[in-house]
Amino acid sequence: MDIAYVLYPNMTALDLVGPYEVLGHPTVRRHFVAASTGPVRCDNGLTLHADTTFAELPGADVIVVPGSSRWRDALTDTTMIDWLAAAHPSATWTTSVCSGSTLLGKAGVLAGRRATSHWAVRDTLAADGATVVDERVVIDGDVITAAGVSAGIDMALTLAATLWGTETAELIQLALEYAPQPPFDAGTPETAPPAAVERLRAAFS
Amino acid sequence: MDIAYVLYPNMTALDLVGPYEVLGHPTVRRHFVAASTGPVRCDNGLTLHADTTFAELPGADVIVVPGSSRWRDALTDTTMIDWLAAAHPSATWTTSVCSGSTLLGKAGVLAGRRATSHWAVRDTLAADGATVVDERVVIDGDVITAAGVSAGIDMALTLAATLWGTETAELIQLALEYAPQPPFDAGTPETAPPAAVERLRAAFS
Repeated sequence: MDIAYVLYPNMTALDLVGPYEVLGHPTVRRHFVAASTGPVRCDNGLTLHADTTFAELPGADVIVVPGSSRWRDALTDTTMIDWLAAAHPSATWTTSVCSGSTLLGKAGVLAGRRATSHWAVRDTLAADGATVVDERVVIDGDVITAAGVSAGIDMALTLAATLWGTETAELIQLALEYAPQPPFDAGTPETAPPAAVERLRAAFS
Repeated sequence: MDIAYVLYPNMTALDLVGPYEVLGHPTVRRHFVAASTGPVRCDNGLTLHADTTFAELPGADVIVVPGSSRWRDALTDTTMIDWLAAAHPSATWTTSVCSGSTLLGKAGVLAGRRATSHWAVRDTLAADGATVVDERVVIDGDVITAAGVSAGIDMALTLAATLWGTETAELIQLALEYAPQPPFDAGTPETAPPAAVERLRAAFS
């Protein structure tokens, strides 16, 4: 099985690394694909390396698209958008984390589908023909969209169970010791302090 | 404030990227430090980029040490262990995720302290003089150790509250939409299927 992890400038590293760690199955061939091979700088300063170009990799069984805190800039990356549009039809699963779903929307993948995104940008998916859903992981046909950043871990565990069965997904969860204990209850706009919601909604708009 | 993220061959990417994303505060200067600058390949195939060498960076306010599925190999990396031993005394916080605590133990940082690690390797910390604790995030003085892989996110949110206050930590949690919904209840050896526990304990021994 081939998994394509899509890299682009100012992407959010955790959006990609969450699913990557969950989907680290020994049978997987991983491809870190970008416009060109070499370093790709993420929005908080970490640099990842792309080992394959869009031109070299026409598609994969699973596609994982991360988001970015500068998501509007990413929407102008026509090379990446065109690749997503071309690669999606032959993929078994096309997936996104956080604002990565806005890239799928731009590529035409979400038209007529239920989908989600980071809470602060979710509503923009409607312009691409999606039905916006307030759920952490949304499966519609062969497309899975996840909510913001950390939701990629939950998305990938769901996907792992589909690919390899529940027992294997549970083994992965145990390997990652994924029994989260957030020290605060502020992970959604419903539970966070209103000032934080306002501030982030403005920052991501 | 300077944060040093320690990179080494076959490290687990999510151990580092979880805290890195949480601690992405605008006032932070991030240093991705390794034996030499350039690419560092992680245990599941992703390559990260080190921008500073141990020789160039004598220390930092916060040190973050990730673990590795090949943690015993990492314990032979004397350059890294020596750097941890030398950098720790002047750090405000020395932290680890997953088996990263075995590196702190080897560097003498955990002697006489309460500490944790990935559940499957936790007990080995006793040989370095630590009191092994079955908690997800363990604070003892200026050292914070976290349980396996995903626990780095919880650790870093706790640290963020200490560094910048609860309001800022809650803002970060909301930005990462960290309201986890694991699809299975298999994240600890107490809740996972016994066969998974046995298999991973053997793999990590």
